[in-house]
This record gives sequence, structure tokens and C-alpha cells, in this order.
Amino acid sequence: MITLHHCVSARSFRPLWMLEELGLAYELRMQPFPPRVKAREYLEVNPLGTVPALFDGAVRMTESAAICQYLAARHSPGNLDVGVNEPDFGAYLNFLHFGEATLTFPQTLVLRYSHFEPPERRQPQVVEDYARWFLARLRTLEPRLAAQPYLCAQRFTAADVSVGYALLLAQHLGLSGSFTPAVQAYWQALQRRDAYARALRAQHAAAEAQGVPTLPAPDTR
Amino acid sequence: MITLHHCVSARSFRPLWMLEELGLAYELRMQPFPPRVKAREYLEVNPLGTVPALFDGAVRMTESAAICQYLAARHSPGNLDVGVNEPDFGAYLNFLHFGEATLTFPQTLVLRYSHFEPPERRQPQVVEDYARWFLARLRTLEPRLAAQPYLCAQRFTAADVSVGYALLLAQHLGLSGSFTPAVQAYWQALQRRDAYARALRAQHAAAEAQGVPTLPAPDTR
Repeated sequence: MITLHHCVSARSFRPLWMLEELGLAYELRMQPFPPRVKAREYLEVNPLGTVPALFDGAVRMTESAAICQYLAARHSPGNLDVGVNEPDFGAYLNFLHFGEATLTFPQTLVLRYSHFEPPERRQPQVVEDYARWFLARLRTLEPRLAAQPYLCAQRFTAADVSVGYALLLAQHLGLSGSFTPAVQAYWQALQRRDAYARALRAQHAAAEAQGVPTLPAPDTR
Repeated sequence: MITLHHCVSARSFRPLWMLEELGLAYELRMQPFPPRVKAREYLEVNPLGTVPALFDGAVRMTESAAICQYLAARHSPGNLDVGVNEPDFGAYLNFLHFGEATLTFPQTLVLRYSHFEPPERRQPQVVEDYARWFLARLRTLEPRLAAQPYLCAQRFTAADVSVGYALLLAQHLGLSGSFTPAVQAYWQALQRRDAYARALRAQHAAAEAQGVPTLPAPDTR
């Protein structure tokens, strides 16, 4: 049985979405955000204090995009992953990392310094620097997504989950109004997936059942 | 023939180090830092304006940790990569991502707001926030590295290159004095690898031959 520790709308939404895409059985343990402050005992589950934390037998993982690749490779070889001998293997790995390192981390700065820090520690310049940084990087996807429906291999893969979460976060941050047309169409198509909708419902049902508050919706721009 | 675009000491050091570990032939094209400002024509090579950019036939990649995994999987299956059926496959993927998303991105904030921004845009609070953030995350490696010589699979893999580069950057930023003992010993052992030394020499020789300035050594703490 797979166990996933998750906060509503956090990066751990990626593995939750993947689990729904793959139709795997899992236990969802909701944490308040940020768990290292609001649920100190969580540090015994994950000393980093971050979500996700995923347990699958002896396997323990904490990096959301890596978990997507792991689940795809173990549970759907040649389907939601891209094999080493396929032409788009390199593109697949690249977009898995791009979704997190290039498209998500900068947004966490926007979130932190516009929303989570107390007023005297807010940093409008940093918020502006990294909102701009994110949108400039995101824009480079436009020609690719204007020419094909998914990021690589002509099919939906774990790489789309990695990048798709960055688009969800951007929507929460009020940045989606600046998406270019093909990126916007891609984002709309991702949201129409059944597994995406099931993952959204699963996190809200689990948060309610476990008495965990959902993230306040940031509205910063 | 593989072509790698690289700036001295930047993230693109990861694929350079991997190429040396694997003994592959490659062409190294040095760029001034940051290339999107100092070499505008580089935007035609990589619209992101970032290094690395790696070309291998029709394959084009820009994420340094993804390139490490790609090179390992294509050129040394079962050696510098970890196979999907090995027990440490999940740990391998996790550390590939951890090295970049968790250990490197925070340091780029330290670098940017202490060093590259003009004085009126520097942000001492952000520098402090993310130096602390980096060291707290890094500390979680201590028990693992006290018990085994490499991050996973009881051998040197691409995951060590991913995390090893984060330690190199920390040294440049003056943060290595805060490494815990096993992390410090691991970092010393990585630096004794022949391929690491060859990669250092290769970037300096190429920078000199191509008339590209090396990064000023940050000395910010």
C-alpha cells in the first residue's frame, strides 16, 4: 500500500494526480500547511518538514517530480513514462525537472514573500522579480504546445503532471491571466482530465474527513 | 558528437562532470555569465537564456540534473544510473531532483541578492533566509552519509553529481564551513575523483582558449 503525505494544493498534488492517473490504491494523509510549523510531529515522518512524503514498501521519497517518474516507471512502463530508447526520452526527463526546478520554485518565492511572511518581512521586489522570471521561462513552451497536445512523446506523461502542477500553482497566485494562448489551451485540457478532477476531489474529501484546514487561496496580484 | 554550452562553475558543471565520468567525446562551448545578458545571440541556441544547453543528435536538453540522468541511462546502464528494478531506484530519482530543486535553487537566491544584483537591489533578508533554508535541508543528509559512502545503491551515480554540484556552489558561496561532518567528508571524497578534476581543468582550459571570462568568485559571507 502506498502512503502519501499531502497538503491541499501543495507540490504533493503531483503524486496524488499521478496515483489517480494510474488507478493505484493509496492512503492519503493530509497535513496542515506548513507542516513543519503546524504539525511538529511530522518531522518524524519527514525530517525535511516538507510535502510530499511518499512511502511504498521500503521506498521513501520526498521530491514530487521524482515521485511522478518513479510511479510511472514502476507502474506503467511505456505509458505514462517514456522509455530510454524512445526518441523523446531526453525531452521527458527535461520536462520532469523543468516543471519543478524552473517553473515551481520561483513561484514559491512569490507565495512566500507576498503571502506567508508577516507584513514586515514581505519583499515586493522579490515577488516581482520571480513572477517575471516564471512567466519568461513559461513562455518558452509556447511554440512546442502550439504544435503538439502534450509536452513529449505525443502522449500524456508524468512530465505533463510535473508542468501541469506549476500551472495550477500559477492560477492560485493569479498569474494565469498572463499565460500565452497555447499554454492556456494546454492548461484547460489538463483540467478536463478525469484523474485531475478525482485528485482535486480526493484532497478536499480527505482534508474534511481528517479535520485539516485547506490553504488560504492566495490572491496577491 | 555531444555539444555542451557551459559557464564556468554554473549548473552546467553537472553535465560536464558526467561527460568526464563517462569518458565521452564532447565539444565544450563556453559562455560568459549570464549569457542572456552578455551574449544575446545565445538566445538562439537556448531561448531560456540559461546554461546548460546540451545537444546530442536530435536531443536537446536544458535541465542539468535531467541531463545527468539521461547521459547515465543512455551511456552506462546499471553503472552511473540505477535501474528501475534495483531497490534504490526511488532514492536515485529522489536525489537527482533533490540536488537541484532543494539544494541548488535556494543558493541561487543567495548568489543573486548578495552578489549579482546592483547594491540598491540587494536583499540581505532573502540571502539570510535561503542560506539558512539550504543548510537546514542539507543537514538531513548527515545520517545517510555517515552510514554509506554514496547517496544510493552503494556506488557513485549521477545522483552524486547532482548533489555534488550543490556542494561546490556552497563552497563558492562560503557556506561549506557549516557542512556537518559526514557531508564534509563526502564532499572531500567527491573532489578526489579523477573525473571531477578533469572537468575543472576542462572548463578553465576552454574558457581561456575561447576568451570567455570566468565567474568572479563570490565571497559573500
